[in-house]
Amino acid sequence: MSDLETESLREKCGVFGIFGHPDAAAITALGLHALQHRGQEAAGIVAFDGRQFNSERRHGLVGDHFSNERVIKRLAGSASIGHVRYATTGETVLRNVQPLFAELEGGGFAVAHNGNFTNGLTLRRQLVRDGAICQSTSDTEVILHLVARSRKLRFVERFVESLRQIEGAYALVALTNKKLVGARDPLGIRPLVLGELNGRYILASETCALDIIGARFVRDIENGEVVIISESGIESLKPFAPQPARPCIFEYIYFARPDSVVNGRSVYDVRKRMGAELAAESPAEADVVVPVPDSGVPAALGYSQASGVPFELGIIRNHYVGRTFIQPSQAIREIGVRMKHSANRGVIEGKRVVLIDDSVVRGTTSVKIVQMMRDAGAKEVHFRIACPPITHPDYYGIDTPERDKLLAAQMDLEGMRAYMGADSLAFLSVDGIYRSMGLARRDPVRPQFTDHCFTGDYPTRLTDVLAESSPRQWAMLAEAS
Amino acid sequence: MSDLETESLREKCGVFGIFGHPDAAAITALGLHALQHRGQEAAGIVAFDGRQFNSERRHGLVGDHFSNERVIKRLAGSASIGHVRYATTGETVLRNVQPLFAELEGGGFAVAHNGNFTNGLTLRRQLVRDGAICQSTSDTEVILHLVARSRKLRFVERFVESLRQIEGAYALVALTNKKLVGARDPLGIRPLVLGELNGRYILASETCALDIIGARFVRDIENGEVVIISESGIESLKPFAPQPARPCIFEYIYFARPDSVVNGRSVYDVRKRMGAELAAESPAEADVVVPVPDSGVPAALGYSQASGVPFELGIIRNHYVGRTFIQPSQAIREIGVRMKHSANRGVIEGKRVVLIDDSVVRGTTSVKIVQMMRDAGAKEVHFRIACPPITHPDYYGIDTPERDKLLAAQMDLEGMRAYMGADSLAFLSVDGIYRSMGLARRDPVRPQFTDHCFTGDYPTRLTDVLAESSPRQWAMLAEAS
Amino acid sequence: MSDLETESLREKCGVFGIFGHPDAAAITALGLHALQHRGQEAAGIVAFDGRQFNSERRHGLVGDHFSNERVIKRLAGSASIGHVRYATTGETVLRNVQPLFAELEGGGFAVAHNGNFTNGLTLRRQLVRDGAICQSTSDTEVILHLVARSRKLRFVERFVESLRQIEGAYALVALTNKKLVGARDPLGIRPLVLGELNGRYILASETCALDIIGARFVRDIENGEVVIISESGIESLKPFAPQPARPCIFEYIYFARPDSVVNGRSVYDVRKRMGAELAAESPAEADVVVPVPDSGVPAALGYSQASGVPFELGIIRNHYVGRTFIQPSQAIREIGVRMKHSANRGVIEGKRVVLIDDSVVRGTTSVKIVQMMRDAGAKEVHFRIACPPITHPDYYGIDTPERDKLLAAQMDLEGMRAYMGADSLAFLSVDGIYRSMGLARRDPVRPQFTDHCFTGDYPTRLTDVLAESSPRQWAMLAEAS
Amino acid sequence: MSDLETESLREKCGVFGIFGHPDAAAITALGLHALQHRGQEAAGIVAFDGRQFNSERRHGLVGDHFSNERVIKRLAGSASIGHVRYATTGETVLRNVQPLFAELEGGGFAVAHNGNFTNGLTLRRQLVRDGAICQSTSDTEVILHLVARSRKLRFVERFVESLRQIEGAYALVALTNKKLVGARDPLGIRPLVLGELNGRYILASETCALDIIGARFVRDIENGEVVIISESGIESLKPFAPQPARPCIFEYIYFARPDSVVNGRSVYDVRKRMGAELAAESPAEADVVVPVPDSGVPAALGYSQASGVPFELGIIRNHYVGRTFIQPSQAIREIGVRMKHSANRGVIEGKRVVLIDDSVVRGTTSVKIVQMMRDAGAKEVHFRIACPPITHPDYYGIDTPERDKLLAAQMDLEGMRAYMGADSLAFLSVDGIYRSMGLARRDPVRPQFTDHCFTGDYPTRLTDVLAESSPRQWAMLAEAS
Repeated sequence: MSDLETESLREKCGVFGIFGHPDAAAITALGLHALQHRGQEAAGIVAFDGRQFNSERRHGLVGDHFSNERVIKRLAGSASIGHVRYATTGETVLRNVQPLFAELEGGGFAVAHNGNFTNGLTLRRQLVRDGAICQSTSDTEVILHLVARSRKLRFVERFVESLRQIEGAYALVALTNKKLVGARDPLGIRPLVLGELNGRYILASETCALDIIGARFVRDIENGEVVIISESGIESLKPFAPQPARPCIFEYIYFARPDSVVNGRSVYDVRKRMGAELAAESPAEADVVVPVPDSGVPAALGYSQASGVPFELGIIRNHYVGRTFIQPSQAIREIGVRMKHSANRGVIEGKRVVLIDDSVVRGTTSVKIVQMMRDAGAKEVHFRIACPPITHPDYYGIDTPERDKLLAAQMDLEGMRAYMGADSLAFLSVDGIYRSMGLARRDPVRPQFTDHCFTGDYPTRLTDVLAESSPRQWAMLAEAS
Repeated sequence: MSDLETESLREKCGVFGIFGHPDAAAITALGLHALQHRGQEAAGIVAFDGRQFNSERRHGLVGDHFSNERVIKRLAGSASIGHVRYATTGETVLRNVQPLFAELEGGGFAVAHNGNFTNGLTLRRQLVRDGAICQSTSDTEVILHLVARSRKLRFVERFVESLRQIEGAYALVALTNKKLVGARDPLGIRPLVLGELNGRYILASETCALDIIGARFVRDIENGEVVIISESGIESLKPFAPQPARPCIFEYIYFARPDSVVNGRSVYDVRKRMGAELAAESPAEADVVVPVPDSGVPAALGYSQASGVPFELGIIRNHYVGRTFIQPSQAIREIGVRMKHSANRGVIEGKRVVLIDDSVVRGTTSVKIVQMMRDAGAKEVHFRIACPPITHPDYYGIDTPERDKLLAAQMDLEGMRAYMGADSLAFLSVDGIYRSMGLARRDPVRPQFTDHCFTGDYPTRLTDVLAESSPRQWAMLAEAS
Repeated sequence: MSDLETESLREKCGVFGIFGHPDAAAITALGLHALQHRGQEAAGIVAFDGRQFNSERRHGLVGDHFSNERVIKRLAGSASIGHVRYATTGETVLRNVQPLFAELEGGGFAVAHNGNFTNGLTLRRQLVRDGAICQSTSDTEVILHLVARSRKLRFVERFVESLRQIEGAYALVALTNKKLVGARDPLGIRPLVLGELNGRYILASETCALDIIGARFVRDIENGEVVIISESGIESLKPFAPQPARPCIFEYIYFARPDSVVNGRSVYDVRKRMGAELAAESPAEADVVVPVPDSGVPAALGYSQASGVPFELGIIRNHYVGRTFIQPSQAIREIGVRMKHSANRGVIEGKRVVLIDDSVVRGTTSVKIVQMMRDAGAKEVHFRIACPPITHPDYYGIDTPERDKLLAAQMDLEGMRAYMGADSLAFLSVDGIYRSMGLARRDPVRPQFTDHCFTGDYPTRLTDVLAESSPRQWAMLAEAS
Repeated sequence: MSDLETESLREKCGVFGIFGHPDAAAITALGLHALQHRGQEAAGIVAFDGRQFNSERRHGLVGDHFSNERVIKRLAGSASIGHVRYATTGETVLRNVQPLFAELEGGGFAVAHNGNFTNGLTLRRQLVRDGAICQSTSDTEVILHLVARSRKLRFVERFVESLRQIEGAYALVALTNKKLVGARDPLGIRPLVLGELNGRYILASETCALDIIGARFVRDIENGEVVIISESGIESLKPFAPQPARPCIFEYIYFARPDSVVNGRSVYDVRKRMGAELAAESPAEADVVVPVPDSGVPAALGYSQASGVPFELGIIRNHYVGRTFIQPSQAIREIGVRMKHSANRGVIEGKRVVLIDDSVVRGTTSVKIVQMMRDAGAKEVHFRIACPPITHPDYYGIDTPERDKLLAAQMDLEGMRAYMGADSLAFLSVDGIYRSMGLARRDPVRPQFTDHCFTGDYPTRLTDVLAESSPRQWAMLAEAS
């Protein structure tokens, strides 16, 4: 998948939290900035200043609002959590921007979430039936209501009781007037790491958010673990029955930043190895290896180094894209892909090109990129994809299209090759991807990663999907509110 | 009180609703525009289109947003309610802009409110204790939660059950997917009228909102009455024990538009009679009667006609004021009042002036206006106020300062006269104001109007005021959320 | 003409200047605020700080931008001129917002203008032919170019040389790095007054701009006079052949603020006398005198006092109007006029009404106001206009419609009455208006006022109008630039 | 120079023009978007619709405004020119955004400029002395005035006469109501190419602007050539004495997009060869070649391929940077460079790193990047710069700091190495850069490129620099206007 297809496969969020630092909000802003690739449409920070909770939530990039001194000053306090996310525009949905906050019996409670609850709508329906008023359409609000209604005494107990009712994937950070809490779902699908800066603890979706502030990586939060950070230090709970971790493999393929270390593995390194495995599995007689920028670059380097075929920047990315321009109506071939990418003709012309992309979702851009290579004079185009065919939608916080929009769910390999117009097409095998992770192969009984997009093997129940009314209908109803 | 003092005495809201009209939102926008004097800081409309509820809420004037075709189109539907109000700026408080809406068990429910619940904070505390999450700091949200939690079957029953728990003043309009509901508190403190346009029913705070759309005035909603408007017509409930009405007298003195008819009386007419009563009670040897514009004009006309002293526009209002300008630091006498008002010297110079204002709250502007008359060469300034001294704060939806900021609570008549620098000062008597209403006098046992600002005689319990924690502290906590 | 017709008759500008005051820009902002009625669409201030000229020009009201401390701080300096004007939106026309400024040989030169040059386009054409580049479409820029091209040594000489080439009406204020200059056209058509604040001189379009800052009125700048204000005091030049003044009569009828004193006469006073003359010329058997607010109020008071028919606020103005609302498409009679005005039914119903307006331009609103009186139950409507029929367009800085849009140029009195639907209609006579000014009658040989709108007697040559290409075409070309 | 230093070395502009296409403005917007790297702070388009010129000029990116359908519709016409540039904010300087336009005798004239006139201020002074009024501070306006004042009959003659008075570097596109004109300075310092789309001619700064719209590259405009494009085709003038071309070498080093072909050479190719020459001149015992992204990537690839040391993405760029964040005040080492770049630790740790950058201006970022490598655990850091030391400022349209801010003008090689903290430092030699261009060496008598930044050998007179008053003072005066 090239960056052109960001509309079809998006991480939904990134989270950050810090406890005990006088510049908590400024540091949170920097951390969120480093996590910006996980969500560009809205950002929010809640800080607690010892007396009250201060909240700022905005549409746009972190730097658009949270680089501003006035905003940071309003976010006084030494404990803070933050969130970046996708969202659409308008008043109605600013309510959906996280962290969510509520004044509950016992004090304020803020929470930010990366992931998706597979029984979120089912829980929401029960809550509304019991007289709850939901202001947002995000499943994160469900946690707020569960905590609000819990009859337990302490916030941590109320929070854990709430987690027990939830199915799906989550990396959560929460803030009370005394504690910063982090939680990762029982399978550890979404990432969450613990860092430390001059003795103060930090929680973040990725290590790159620690690097930007010069913090030290301590460890990954474990699957099913709840950590409680307070004046008296850090405490760890394991409220769920123990089971092996099964993190989402897409963090390595596409979402995480290449300089992050996720679950102990360098993302850049894994991506290069995916390229190398791909070269071993599907070599090509070629003159140049060309990445689809920017996400295809590490795999292309790996492919080049393993195959000896030289790596060249055969596609140049225009860094200034954002909006869609008016297309001239006359006499111009479709511009689309050229707004963002252009062929570096000198490198392509007369060459046999191995084109490397990290993944293919709908395939519409692949067609255009291959055509762009042809237009630039490529003699042959061998398309290599550094992951297996995506055949199943995600329900754990990645915004995939429905099954009938997934190219690999609709066509076989030859069909896809013909559709894209490539001379050859190959995907990395499922075992190839596990080898890139340093494993011998996928364990079919206890798969080491969440990989249902390639295998259809969903790691949890899909309660909402199975429920009578489809989630899509419910979402519309909720949105209407 | 001149318009210069609008910071000290403000009506909190105006409401409007219509059922069964294809242009419901456009008509609601017009109605709210006519009610703009009741609240200039925010406005909102919710419409139901047979399938879903559509909501638009904005800071600013009705005309700033709701004159826009795109906004009105988004508010599709044949039933609609709207609200104008005061509010401050920023994200946190857009949540406070009404109508409030929630998707409840049984369908959506929207509500808009003019008034104030004297037990609002007490109810809110109970709700939070029971696990409710309050998103706004407005007491209107309390109704939503009470309705959400009611175990009654039908919305109207749930609404009535909620009203029974509420103390204070309210004129409410609510919208469900089947009905438009209106309610006025047991004493009818805040106004609400029923209108009719081509067979469709309308609810509005004042008759001027009917006039703008050419609708017919049907009748006032009675004190303690709930009206339910649906496809099958209009129905009236009286869920409270019957008692005499006791409407707020300030609607006549200051809030209502002069062309409105409130509880059967023309506001313009009442104001002129207040001026005439004032002339009878406190005549003055003078050459001209000068109103403090614009709210003092009708009383000044009444005073002039009763006394025979000619009416002149001795103070000219600058219509373009809004903001406070930087004051030059050097060599200029305080500009303040001149930003908005200026003396019409030709009318004042060498004259004995009777200056008429509708009311005095803090008195700071009165001082400046009297000085302005002196500067323009007035020989004598006789200040006449067309209502009694304001000695007590309001708790029913009027934003009065606290007691120690009320001039008449701090000084006697001579003290006030000296403070203002007038040659003479007189207020209309309490009985004078009742006479202006066409009554013989105030009935001390069953006062015909809510007049506690002059008398200290509050018509309901003040539960929140009496509660341990002061409302102000609670408001801050809530605002923090 | 009611305020509803402001689209058809607008003053184009107001000017202000001050020399030698440390808060020059702040004072200029206040002065412009007091002149806001002369132009609401854009405002600008240029100040000289001893080293450089600082300029801020903005669309919108003075208070929207120039009440801001940062803006005023950017306008450092002890000499300053300012301007309010009409203009449309967008980038192209911000160039037209005054004061205009240019860095010329010898130093910077800023100028602001109220009026219109009747040979402005002719001069512009000559300048362009000689290689000048015009950035704005305002005729004010012509002065800049004439000054820039003058071969005289001193700025004042260059300015006077430029004025000699100009025909038409103007009140100009100009600023160099040493002087503040004011000029009024040879007939004194547009107003300009001299004031004084603690020994510093001020120039302003009207005295109300002196009042707001507590400055003292010194005298009117004379027709054909140029005043030069500098460190060494004030100097007066009379560069034109002497002739009697002939100020614009419309300042009294409509433009000037009622509390201003224009050419020695109180505007409020003149307006009241116009009402009194009207009562004498065209009495009516009636119960109430009702002004069309706000501009008809003084004349109505005069009519009432002269006739003994009581004055009542029969029409209430909504102060919050600005934009045009979407009109509901169904079942509602045209709303138009009701957005801004509403009938005060209690005063109108069953009454014989004398309706007073200050003028009639297109007459479209008059029709609606009469109808509004009928709808409110008026028994009879006698329409009285406190000036003569407007039959000719203006070319001196008032934005009148072309002749075929002027009602009185298209119909006779009975035609107009029938069109408006009034029971009777009368205009003040031309001599009546002169009597209101304290004169016996209009001198047909040397008319004492510029009154061509009523008489067709234009006081200067209309060079551009007579030129081959019409001004309108040129304006379009220029606008395109 | 890394992208972090864009504040110190900036191309000033890019230009585009098309004649005879019904979608001229939409195509111009696309072309400007492809040229966005040449100027990100403002953009403008002027189009001629056969009747009038339409202009839109805005601060911000092309995509921020010119992707909008309404804006493009306002730019009707089949001939259009556009411009991207740097500029600061505020009203005053929107006047500087190009294309500039004026209505001249004979019709409208629009012009857009990339480059700088070395006698621009001198010419401006003469023009002001002769009565010209300059609205902008850009030297482009000088052309407008020269054309306006020319006594020649035809626009092309007037334009050529103007060019004869100008010294310095320029690539100009101009639009009249009949013609599109392009001109390149006598030495061809700034680039300009001719393209063709379905028979319609296009002018653009770089070929990448042709590629985006699928246009064909025809040829470079020659040094000293003026091309006139009209309904009757294309015509070429050579109004200057012939001399060899001497294009700016910095287009290859930094400015042009890697996929552009400038003066017949692929930019990407030249950059890779610079890296290869650098590897030959200054090899290093190392484990990885790491580019400073993004501009150092091609040279690093060239270095890696020539040296056999593997290429790795050792620095990851954050694509979402824009603003400067508030820096936490406590306990955090300076964040600066980490906002934009972060070390990819897995690639760096324990390695001997060859760090490749395209150039060094002030050197402040180089220090930080070297430190970042150290912090990430690099064993050795060998810094290699793919161009010679920059010792002299530019006066031809590149925004260089003054001499005393140029690191290489202040220190020798060892001094720079020590300052940067690198283990070794080497720059490409001047002859090395010429070899990268495919030449044997620099011809010291007739240098084949404009290379004064490295050699001090300025290709034209520097009239303004030599003039009495420094350009900086003049600029301030002008800016003040």
